Amino acid sequence: MGQEGRLADAHVAAKNVPAVRSWVSLDSTGNGTSLDVDKHAIMRRVQIHARDLRIIDPLLSYPSAILGREKAIVLNLEHIKAIITAEEVLLRDPSRENVIPVVEEFFRRLPATYQPEGKGTGQHDAAEVDVSPFEFRALEVALEAICSSLDTQTIELENSAYPALDELTAKISSRNLDRVRKLKSAMTRLIARVQKVRDELERLLDDDNNMADLYLSRKMGTESPHMAGSAVSSVTPNSPFLVSKASRVSRASVATLHGNEYDVEELEMLLEAYFVQLDGTLNKLNTLREYVDDTEDYINFQLDNHRNQLIQLELFLSTCTVSFTFYSLVGAIFGMNIPYSWNENHEQVFKWVVGIGGMISGLILIIVLFYARYRGLIGT
Amino acid sequence: MGQEGRLADAHVAAKNVPAVRSWVSLDSTGNGTSLDVDKHAIMRRVQIHARDLRIIDPLLSYPSAILGREKAIVLNLEHIKAIITAEEVLLRDPSRENVIPVVEEFFRRLPATYQPEGKGTGQHDAAEVDVSPFEFRALEVALEAICSSLDTQTIELENSAYPALDELTAKISSRNLDRVRKLKSAMTRLIARVQKVRDELERLLDDDNNMADLYLSRKMGTESPHMAGSAVSSVTPNSPFLVSKASRVSRASVATLHGNEYDVEELEMLLEAYFVQLDGTLNKLNTLREYVDDTEDYINFQLDNHRNQLIQLELFLSTCTVSFTFYSLVGAIFGMNIPYSWNENHEQVFKWVVGIGGMISGLILIIVLFYARYRGLIGT
Amino acid sequence: MGQEGRLADAHVAAKNVPAVRSWVSLDSTGNGTSLDVDKHAIMRRVQIHARDLRIIDPLLSYPSAILGREKAIVLNLEHIKAIITAEEVLLRDPSRENVIPVVEEFFRRLPATYQPEGKGTGQHDAAEVDVSPFEFRALEVALEAICSSLDTQTIELENSAYPALDELTAKISSRNLDRVRKLKSAMTRLIARVQKVRDELERLLDDDNNMADLYLSRKMGTESPHMAGSAVSSVTPNSPFLVSKASRVSRASVATLHGNEYDVEELEMLLEAYFVQLDGTLNKLNTLREYVDDTEDYINFQLDNHRNQLIQLELFLSTCTVSFTFYSLVGAIFGMNIPYSWNENHEQVFKWVVGIGGMISGLILIIVLFYARYRGLIGT
Amino acid sequence: MGQEGRLADAHVAAKNVPAVRSWVSLDSTGNGTSLDVDKHAIMRRVQIHARDLRIIDPLLSYPSAILGREKAIVLNLEHIKAIITAEEVLLRDPSRENVIPVVEEFFRRLPATYQPEGKGTGQHDAAEVDVSPFEFRALEVALEAICSSLDTQTIELENSAYPALDELTAKISSRNLDRVRKLKSAMTRLIARVQKVRDELERLLDDDNNMADLYLSRKMGTESPHMAGSAVSSVTPNSPFLVSKASRVSRASVATLHGNEYDVEELEMLLEAYFVQLDGTLNKLNTLREYVDDTEDYINFQLDNHRNQLIQLELFLSTCTVSFTFYSLVGAIFGMNIPYSWNENHEQVFKWVVGIGGMISGLILIIVLFYARYRGLIGT
Amino acid sequence: MGQEGRLADAHVAAKNVPAVRSWVSLDSTGNGTSLDVDKHAIMRRVQIHARDLRIIDPLLSYPSAILGREKAIVLNLEHIKAIITAEEVLLRDPSRENVIPVVEEFFRRLPATYQPEGKGTGQHDAAEVDVSPFEFRALEVALEAICSSLDTQTIELENSAYPALDELTAKISSRNLDRVRKLKSAMTRLIARVQKVRDELERLLDDDNNMADLYLSRKMGTESPHMAGSAVSSVTPNSPFLVSKASRVSRASVATLHGNEYDVEELEMLLEAYFVQLDGTLNKLNTLREYVDDTEDYINFQLDNHRNQLIQLELFLSTCTVSFTFYSLVGAIFGMNIPYSWNENHEQVFKWVVGIGGMISGLILIIVLFYARYRGLIGT
Repeated sequence: MGQEGRLADAHVAAKNVPAVRSWVSLDSTGNGTSLDVDKHAIMRRVQIHARDLRIIDPLLSYPSAILGREKAIVLNLEHIKAIITAEEVLLRDPSRENVIPVVEEFFRRLPATYQPEGKGTGQHDAAEVDVSPFEFRALEVALEAICSSLDTQTIELENSAYPALDELTAKISSRNLDRVRKLKSAMTRLIARVQKVRDELERLLDDDNNMADLYLSRKMGTESPHMAGSAVSSVTPNSPFLVSKASRVSRASVATLHGNEYDVEELEMLLEAYFVQLDGTLNKLNTLREYVDDTEDYINFQLDNHRNQLIQLELFLSTCTVSFTFYSLVGAIFGMNIPYSWNENHEQVFKWVVGIGGMISGLILIIVLFYARYRGLIGT
Repeated sequence: MGQEGRLADAHVAAKNVPAVRSWVSLDSTGNGTSLDVDKHAIMRRVQIHARDLRIIDPLLSYPSAILGREKAIVLNLEHIKAIITAEEVLLRDPSRENVIPVVEEFFRRLPATYQPEGKGTGQHDAAEVDVSPFEFRALEVALEAICSSLDTQTIELENSAYPALDELTAKISSRNLDRVRKLKSAMTRLIARVQKVRDELERLLDDDNNMADLYLSRKMGTESPHMAGSAVSSVTPNSPFLVSKASRVSRASVATLHGNEYDVEELEMLLEAYFVQLDGTLNKLNTLREYVDDTEDYINFQLDNHRNQLIQLELFLSTCTVSFTFYSLVGAIFGMNIPYSWNENHEQVFKWVVGIGGMISGLILIIVLFYARYRGLIGT
Repeated sequence: MGQEGRLADAHVAAKNVPAVRSWVSLDSTGNGTSLDVDKHAIMRRVQIHARDLRIIDPLLSYPSAILGREKAIVLNLEHIKAIITAEEVLLRDPSRENVIPVVEEFFRRLPATYQPEGKGTGQHDAAEVDVSPFEFRALEVALEAICSSLDTQTIELENSAYPALDELTAKISSRNLDRVRKLKSAMTRLIARVQKVRDELERLLDDDNNMADLYLSRKMGTESPHMAGSAVSSVTPNSPFLVSKASRVSRASVATLHGNEYDVEELEMLLEAYFVQLDGTLNKLNTLREYVDDTEDYINFQLDNHRNQLIQLELFLSTCTVSFTFYSLVGAIFGMNIPYSWNENHEQVFKWVVGIGGMISGLILIIVLFYARYRGLIGT
Repeated sequence: MGQEGRLADAHVAAKNVPAVRSWVSLDSTGNGTSLDVDKHAIMRRVQIHARDLRIIDPLLSYPSAILGREKAIVLNLEHIKAIITAEEVLLRDPSRENVIPVVEEFFRRLPATYQPEGKGTGQHDAAEVDVSPFEFRALEVALEAICSSLDTQTIELENSAYPALDELTAKISSRNLDRVRKLKSAMTRLIARVQKVRDELERLLDDDNNMADLYLSRKMGTESPHMAGSAVSSVTPNSPFLVSKASRVSRASVATLHGNEYDVEELEMLLEAYFVQLDGTLNKLNTLREYVDDTEDYINFQLDNHRNQLIQLELFLSTCTVSFTFYSLVGAIFGMNIPYSWNENHEQVFKWVVGIGGMISGLILIIVLFYARYRGLIGT
Repeated sequence: MGQEGRLADAHVAAKNVPAVRSWVSLDSTGNGTSLDVDKHAIMRRVQIHARDLRIIDPLLSYPSAILGREKAIVLNLEHIKAIITAEEVLLRDPSRENVIPVVEEFFRRLPATYQPEGKGTGQHDAAEVDVSPFEFRALEVALEAICSSLDTQTIELENSAYPALDELTAKISSRNLDRVRKLKSAMTRLIARVQKVRDELERLLDDDNNMADLYLSRKMGTESPHMAGSAVSSVTPNSPFLVSKASRVSRASVATLHGNEYDVEELEMLLEAYFVQLDGTLNKLNTLREYVDDTEDYINFQLDNHRNQLIQLELFLSTCTVSFTFYSLVGAIFGMNIPYSWNENHEQVFKWVVGIGGMISGLILIIVLFYARYRGLIGT
């Protein structure tokens, strides 16, 4: 079946299955089967417990997790909710808009004969065919999808956040404040989600046992030929105690002795690469967060400084008011209709009153302003 | 005995026992015995120390803890205070309102013949019967109860917090502030509790030895047949030193060599699943906390911005006052009852005084406002 | 000697010894000897270094620490400063007020024949006698004393802090602020101290080697009979390299092979129980801290909101002032003693001037208030 | 070829290669070959995966990372993006301005015959020739370049930040605030970058396995002579289980047994030295950050204190206004043109009115100011 | 040579050597040789790399570090910059003022025959002579010097900080703010330095391998008699694989098997004691920091509360102004020179106008104040 055919098939599959509780099963031959079974059927099929299935329940919205089970990897990475076994990938809700590209990518890359890139150029020999175990090919598709999805969302957020912040810096208004608040909430949520996926990868990378649990093919391989296992134990009849440190020296490490001892390295390298990618995304988000924080500090200072300048101007105006009020007071006093004896030599008196009143009034203004400037309150 | 009978029995048990210091004992046959014994009897029965019993004392309100003891698991998970042995569950205060459903769940799931779900459909064969050791079945019931209890409380908190915060954003009043403060306190306490249970699970998951301590059945099993143990030591007479790293290579790892080496995996998978659930709950709470923080920042900015706008308007009014006061001043001066010589050519003088006074007054207003706008203090 | 006698003895001892640099030595037979020796005598007696003795110097006030030395445990837990060996407890400053109860508790529980509780009831057989090594009995007494001391202080702090905070919420005054500030300082110091003891227990629990160092009796036991040790080494002549990982496979793990391999478990269980207690105390304090923080945020919002409301009212008053000033201005203009021609048809003019002036004045008031309300500055 | 010739060569190489996707290959003989190949060629040449190559893609700007792959070290340290194998260094974008000095340093120090410093003095014998493996010589050049580059940027930032902060302290203006905000953003970004490189070194130092992965020469050496490996396994036929703990006992530890067991020490010492350098740089930046934070706190206090002083002065002015307004009021009342009977004995009345009015007015001023001082509102 | 002679010698040495790049070499015989050599000579002498020497370059001011090298400990503890080998201590800049006491202490305690304290009393036998290896004696001198130096600085800071904070609480002025700011900067820097030394000790304590690297004498001892080493390997021909876990089972652990297996304990005990000391110092500083933070919060509240009270008083004054202005307005209206008909029955009219005007004016005052009190804005 050609790739286009399969892609079309995927679209058909995506459309035919009901929206709720539907699954698609993808295997290494490139076939996709739409499943519409209940959860007990799934649990029997991949031998996981009900509590594990709950983790990828789209209604419960659990955080991202990659859990190694005996015969399956339970994968809950944002919108990609899947169970990976050594032979097939069970993907939840394949018809959701943001899952369809992932389904297509699975179709393209799960078959063992997949050639990474530029496969039509003829200059790549067969050696470049990806020979990773099936479960790692599936894991890589999921990780790549989730990393690029988170990175895309980060870039979108950056594109709307930076202009909004600069606009807020230029003009502090309720509308701009509210817009930045919404962007900040979105940023916080996105950081938490990226952090969660990153932590999950770090958790795996930190513990070799957890990584060994994900080698489904190898676990299966070493299980079926019981002969190999018994051979090992027959070779070492006299040292059963030597299994040191923990009770966990699992079949993985047994397999280790039979030639493929670099395999946990393979998974480590796979996870490390996507860990660095997520770290880069997280870096961008943290830079954005710092920018938001700095902008907020700046706005706070601006608001405070603005207020102080407003109050300084108001202080000046108050001083004027006091000065003018004093002058008016003089006028009011001499405006009273109570006769007094000064208005004999009138021409002179009026000049003196107006002159001295004005001078005192001006003096009040000057003294207050000088005092304020002396105390450093205005005019710096 | 049918399930309904037993449930009723549980209710009876719950009612008959006194409220203080009462226990109910539940075993794997589905029998529940109400106990009303003192703490020394309990200590003898499960062979734990007084200091361990204190941890589940309802009066002392210790934080959540799961402690593995020699023959028992001491469990203090919020309202569920229990001691689990390999054969029975001793549950404290079974008649408390929020413990009764847990008791019923214990009755339903502790018997070894329990079939997980949809047990009447006939399509599930015996293979699905939960064959975990008794202590893990009990542990799972407790963890499930506590996880769903914490999640329910989280959802309730969310349902009251988000509207309260939006209301506060719309109108900043003392009543709304106080309401949000109360919700915030509740949130902080709930976060601390969820975090505590989650940390307890993480602590167990981080250390294989701690997990091995919880395998009560296995520890008991390897203890009674001393023969097996001696067999092991007789096989390895020449390498007693090989027990590497720590003095803790406990009986669990000895058992490991006798076939059931995946058992610590079983507990790990059990704990991991509930760890992810708690992580999801914590995620929701952290998102809520971030929302609260963002809202507070927003309110702060709003209050500050509001104040600056108030002051801007007041500045305008002050300017008007100064301007009007100046004009009044002119009136007051010419209203004095001191005669002066200008009022000869009266018609002209009045017009000039009123005109020039008004112009200067208007000029004061315009100059101040222009200055304030030039300095960026108002009008942006 | 009866217990009462010994207690009295302790009181006497406590009174006779000088206040500074005095010690009391308590051994497993229940005898307490008051010592008044210099530090070199102590150092020789318990074989510790001067730098270790400095840690429990009451004048230097070092933070809490539990250090395992070759033949002693150096214990600095708040006011309990002691050196525990396999045979005796050297307690510093036994006559200090808060140490006396600890001394009494030591007298009561150090003798090997101590029966935990309710010892007169006759229903407890000899099996309940505490058979822990001497050093652990001593350690438990010290830990119990310190845990209950810290818990008591926490409860006292809570009892004074919560009312003070609520009072501050009700009335923000300098006196209340200062009182809360003092309580906050006390809280911060108490948190630091509880945290320190808790961290010390956690540090021990995290490292089995550190715990093994505290098994003084066992270390002594395996040391004296050199035969046992040589036996071990003679059994394993061909694998000296097998002592894996670290150079620390100390005598403790050697002893492990000789039957008492659960002993490190014993100490772990002891420490775990008090760790949970301290965690509970820390929990209370953290809840208090959160309450303080929330209250402070609330007060900040209240102060800010209060200020905005004050300014809103002032804005209203300023508007009135402007309005009245304008009206006065009209009066002042027509009050000038400059003759003008309008006052011919006087009755009419006065009415028009008063009417129009009042209307304009009222209009100013209304326009400004409407503008402020339209901008959302007042009246919400 | 002389060193100058080679340097010139590097310059030529740097100019000839196209700006995008160009590489230069440097080997231990001191030859530099400009490569202009696509990424598949690079991937085949050094046997790394596409996802690893993406990490050093200059367009994707991933964070700093040092990843050990099977036959290569993938190095992304800020502007230095390189792949180090046991025989050559592939450096990306060698013609970028800040990479050219690094290329020259590579030319100078990669050849095995390089003599560290002062090589013309004749007093250093051959023993001082750096005999580290090729990959470590390359790694050291890159680390040294990045450390000094980060330190230079830190010093530049310090030189512009400290004066800017002091200027802001002296005068709080929008221009200064904006300048400090920009410097703070730059500082935050620089801290994140230094921290990232430092964390990467710490991650390597924390795990011996990760360090062992970087011993490319040794891994290559132990791989080719398969004989040695088989010899080892033939020597130990009876203990295949003894490979303890993890599946990772890689070839490095095999090599360890063949004489060069201090080699991981060598890398550790190399990394430690640069770790301390980066720590020093980070220290400077953290000191700067603290200074920024303290300055911000100080400015906040200053602004707040300034505002309070402004308001105090305004309070004084308001008091004057009230006082003067009262006096004016008296004047206005007696200035009404409504006849009253007091102005009979005029001389006396005027004096009384002016006198009493002035006294009351003054009293208002004094009472308010005393009250404010009594309440501690002004004048402290 | 007597001790005094040597001390004088040290002083002479300290004076004779040039200030820059000078060293003093101190060995176990108590001799101090002043060295004035270039860095290549030092590097050859102690066999360390140039990058390690850079760490103790006084011009580069790197953070504190204790690095174990093959034959030397590179020590950079604040002002004490030294290289310790198994036979001598190379101390940098011995003539710096704060280094001279350290030099003297080295002279006093490095000789193997040193008796700790009170050596003239005759009651201490030879058993108390410090028999630690030379490098630990040197390390202890350096640690003791640095711990007491940091503690002294902490006490000095406390002595100036607490009064300054209390003064600031009493009076918030620019001068006090600036002084506290400077003390806060000093505190932050001191905390960072103490933390750095503490972290360095913790890093060593956390990893037994790092501690083993510091056993210079032992490493030298096991190196020279190659016989011992070969003996070990000849005893275990059949288990080369058993060197488990890491490639680091260094010579230290080899030595461990030859009797002195408690030696890493010795270093651990040495470091632990100074770790506790540094923890105590850090404790004091953290308490100080908390006090500073609490004081700042308090000042913030005080400033805010002060401002609100100022505004409350101003609100009262504004109300008076409005009230008086209204009254003046009445006066101004009736003061207009426009004739009106009310002034017929003059005596009555004047009384009514004054009375009603005053009543309305007073009513305005009362209504506004009641409203403000009703809204809780003033008077609580």
